[in-house]
Amino acid sequence: MYRTHTCGELRLANVGQTVTLAGWVQRTRKMGGMTFVDVRDRYGITQIVFEDKPTSSSSEKGGNLFEQANRLGREYVVQVTGCVSERSNKNQNLPTGDIEIIATQLNVLNESVTPPFTIEDQSDGGDDLRMKYRYLDLRRTPVRRNLELRHKMTMEVRRYLDSLGFLEIETPMLIGSTPEGARDFVVPSRMNPGQFYALPQSPQTLKQLLMVSGMDRYFQIVKCFRDEDLRADRQPEFTQIDCEMSFVTQEDILQTFEGMAKHLFRQLRGIELEGAFPRMTWADAMKYYGSDKPDTRFDMRFVELKDVFQKAPGFSVFDEATYIGGICAKGQAVYTRKQLDQLTDFVKRPQIGAKGLVYARVQEDGTVKSSVDKFYGPEVLGELKERMQAEPGDLILILSGDDAMRTRKQLCELRLEMGARMGLRDKNKFALLWVIDFPMFEWSEEEGRLMATHHPFTHPKDEDIPLLDTDPAAVRADAYDMVCNGVEVGGGSIRIHDPELQDKMFRILGFTEERAQEQFGFLMNAFKYGAPPHGGLAYGLDRWVSLFAGLDSIRDCIAFPKNNSGRDVMLDAPARLEQKQLDELYLDIKKLPE
Amino acid sequence: MYRTHTCGELRLANVGQTVTLAGWVQRTRKMGGMTFVDVRDRYGITQIVFEDKPTSSSSEKGGNLFEQANRLGREYVVQVTGCVSERSNKNQNLPTGDIEIIATQLNVLNESVTPPFTIEDQSDGGDDLRMKYRYLDLRRTPVRRNLELRHKMTMEVRRYLDSLGFLEIETPMLIGSTPEGARDFVVPSRMNPGQFYALPQSPQTLKQLLMVSGMDRYFQIVKCFRDEDLRADRQPEFTQIDCEMSFVTQEDILQTFEGMAKHLFRQLRGIELEGAFPRMTWADAMKYYGSDKPDTRFDMRFVELKDVFQKAPGFSVFDEATYIGGICAKGQAVYTRKQLDQLTDFVKRPQIGAKGLVYARVQEDGTVKSSVDKFYGPEVLGELKERMQAEPGDLILILSGDDAMRTRKQLCELRLEMGARMGLRDKNKFALLWVIDFPMFEWSEEEGRLMATHHPFTHPKDEDIPLLDTDPAAVRADAYDMVCNGVEVGGGSIRIHDPELQDKMFRILGFTEERAQEQFGFLMNAFKYGAPPHGGLAYGLDRWVSLFAGLDSIRDCIAFPKNNSGRDVMLDAPARLEQKQLDELYLDIKKLPE
Repeated sequence: MYRTHTCGELRLANVGQTVTLAGWVQRTRKMGGMTFVDVRDRYGITQIVFEDKPTSSSSEKGGNLFEQANRLGREYVVQVTGCVSERSNKNQNLPTGDIEIIATQLNVLNESVTPPFTIEDQSDGGDDLRMKYRYLDLRRTPVRRNLELRHKMTMEVRRYLDSLGFLEIETPMLIGSTPEGARDFVVPSRMNPGQFYALPQSPQTLKQLLMVSGMDRYFQIVKCFRDEDLRADRQPEFTQIDCEMSFVTQEDILQTFEGMAKHLFRQLRGIELEGAFPRMTWADAMKYYGSDKPDTRFDMRFVELKDVFQKAPGFSVFDEATYIGGICAKGQAVYTRKQLDQLTDFVKRPQIGAKGLVYARVQEDGTVKSSVDKFYGPEVLGELKERMQAEPGDLILILSGDDAMRTRKQLCELRLEMGARMGLRDKNKFALLWVIDFPMFEWSEEEGRLMATHHPFTHPKDEDIPLLDTDPAAVRADAYDMVCNGVEVGGGSIRIHDPELQDKMFRILGFTEERAQEQFGFLMNAFKYGAPPHGGLAYGLDRWVSLFAGLDSIRDCIAFPKNNSGRDVMLDAPARLEQKQLDELYLDIKKLPE
Repeated sequence: MYRTHTCGELRLANVGQTVTLAGWVQRTRKMGGMTFVDVRDRYGITQIVFEDKPTSSSSEKGGNLFEQANRLGREYVVQVTGCVSERSNKNQNLPTGDIEIIATQLNVLNESVTPPFTIEDQSDGGDDLRMKYRYLDLRRTPVRRNLELRHKMTMEVRRYLDSLGFLEIETPMLIGSTPEGARDFVVPSRMNPGQFYALPQSPQTLKQLLMVSGMDRYFQIVKCFRDEDLRADRQPEFTQIDCEMSFVTQEDILQTFEGMAKHLFRQLRGIELEGAFPRMTWADAMKYYGSDKPDTRFDMRFVELKDVFQKAPGFSVFDEATYIGGICAKGQAVYTRKQLDQLTDFVKRPQIGAKGLVYARVQEDGTVKSSVDKFYGPEVLGELKERMQAEPGDLILILSGDDAMRTRKQLCELRLEMGARMGLRDKNKFALLWVIDFPMFEWSEEEGRLMATHHPFTHPKDEDIPLLDTDPAAVRADAYDMVCNGVEVGGGSIRIHDPELQDKMFRILGFTEERAQEQFGFLMNAFKYGAPPHGGLAYGLDRWVSLFAGLDSIRDCIAFPKNNSGRDVMLDAPARLEQKQLDELYLDIKKLPE
């Protein structure tokens, strides 16, 4: 046996016991005739004391022990036996801080060269270095805690869903390629030369087949894959909590997964989320927050102001705008000119693209001082104040433009920036809501046709079905997203189970019958054999863990993540293959771009 | 709400309640003025009664209802409301057999065309048809039960390992290719043209890195991939319960996973496995059973007989054999000449390849009557009987050959065949054991060098380490397999954590330093930073589920399996890609074989 206890386990109650621990040398300190060694494992840190004096058993052995201890380097792997003793100098920051081990035996299990960065909560290693030596980075407590949280979260997800009769069913990883949507990773088959599997972007169609098969309640915590340029917070492989239910309405699904979110908050963060989650239509979310994933930890809703400023034409920017919207930043009238210039620069950044920022301060006497005073008199400004429900000390920020949607998105960025500046986006506060009634279709300029907002299997709202023939762009879907703190943490829809309605949907989306058959024939065929009404939802696991852990990036909650070029710098993958491997697959590499 | 209860839920206690059920029409029977419809969902079957008479509420409605019911076809999806009533004619085979629903409302949620095979426990559909329409096959109770068992099994595995402090950690699916061993599936990267990821054959090196990172106890239920010709019971993607522990000896691992096996038998089959699992060295397993995965549900061990027959030369087959071995089939002296000829044909089949079979019956009077009576007198045959511990009525079966290992494997097949004929291989009886002390290396004729029996990271037995320099072929490893009923259900080893020993191992395996660095550099590098002693094990989930479910093939416990050519006939994958997809990956397909 390598150890009797872990390094996080011993307390005052163990004093007097002879124990054996194993772990890594966190640090050593020599003080007078004693050497203190902190030994670390996943469970904690325990202080070991080596005394420079003959031990009771053998003077020679004791001497050697002390010298041995003084030769220990950082990250050596050691096994130590000794007696648990009460510390005179207790360390309140350490669960084991009341005790120490008076060593009687030391066994170096493995040595270590000097690590490329310090294995401390705050490391001196840069991102790239830490990724290359990820196995050392994972020794750091904050990183390890993320993986522990991830484990605990998946356990709780399974416990909750199992208790409701959901079955976890594995769907295949080697499936067929579906050119619709984002890009598939493909996998050549040696046994079927010239042919390829694809890795699933999601098990969407497979879980629908499981509903056709009567599985009733399915879930899976499953790897999904997307071969596309990685935005800031995307990984080529990511993990979904994928769920589907039969004989349910949207209401059943929202209830079930609201329950899951509450369960997770309770079990993982000790937070009791009271009451039902607010529900907001997509239209309202866009109108009041300029986003389909509003951060509702704070209010600061958009107020439409076009009609206010219309009353006194003269300021051409506003006169020509089709949309004017404002937000009211409570108590921020103290903003200096310099701070307001910074805000103006912020909204004018190319990523946001506003042309300018209009502001108005409500002064102590109730009058309004704005950047457009020369165009508007006290009457209009007074109405502005009233419309914004602004009070003395408040700052009103206004954006305008000729594309309402685009301007709202700009105003959304400004609102989030103000929320951050005002400390309203506390990582330990959680605001959850459902965004519902998404539009069924989006117009794609690139493709010159309507595209499915969610996917082609989404059920339109019953009352909007007649619009499919007359005004498809106006059709709303039985689709819903769960949003937390401005992040979409999950989303799904009720699916079409009627083969005729599905056919119609494919036609609207511009599929020829042949192409629909080619790509989704197996699903449409399955639907002929009695598909039940069904619907589901998928949560992004990486995102959920990041949220609970208070992380800025999903990368930090993944054991071995890839970088923004999709590379694993630790494994040095992807890499070139040997010619022999390519030959076996009947593949040639074309001349590559320079 | 689509339903108030499931189709498996209602009992006598519910009589008088108005309920709504939803499910599939299993069958309809018209009897006099009534139509009986069995409605099925995942949870069970409930009988619905439609009466040909005006209902209390509306005569017209009642009439329509009956007609509607008579139009229902097999596998229609229906929603039925009615009153729970006690049956006069109870069905004891059905949990809901005490009640029926007197229907007051029927809603056809979806129709179905006629299924290509019957959705019954015993279907009339052939294998290929059932695979093509797997979503219908999954509606059959025996198939669905396999998936339910699989779900329950993974839940219990996680519960057990979580309770011991194991963390489930996801390792990446897109890793680097390692040409050693079986063949990788490779995945071209669009973002890194000309370069490929590989799908893991196992997370072996990654879980070792997790041990270097101090994760201490890891597990993962994870998909693994192998692109090779599929033997009878292999799938290109399969699921492993993959585990690794730090600061452990082989003994710790055997204890931990023996505990897991006992937990699973208790939870899934209600079987209490008493006492410690027997342990058998690989050498003994080969000697007594001719297999490294002996079926120990029955004894019938091999007895070596060379010295017995040596005493009376004359029968050239035995005289020239280097190995003669026998088994004793209790009570089988009644075998007729015809049956013995069948056995002879059995061992002479090309897959087994024995040259012939010698047999001896122990007669009621204790004398022995054998097929080699003309070569051996009563003295040798008497010694044979004694050596075999044979009694009157027993049948002794003997094989011989000039390659002991090959002959033992033939005798193994004969032993299994006799066990099956004698009814000793009961699917509801479970015999577990550990096979330990595997040889470290195997000689590969093909490669002309020693190959690792398990993998290059396996730790040799401490006492055999000196032999690495002198007689590597004799080195035994700290490697172990868990065997149940003649099936290897899991296996693993203690790993090397000493970089120098690992270097030596690579040299013995014929790796140049460059090649070792190229393929395993990241792992060898990691080992320089303080690798703890560690070891682990992987269970084949598919195999475990098959075992518990009493299945002949792992295919039956996989939701959407592939066929022997690695094809998913339902999805029709793999398939050719569009030229556009190939172009984006800078790939060309060479001229394919005819």
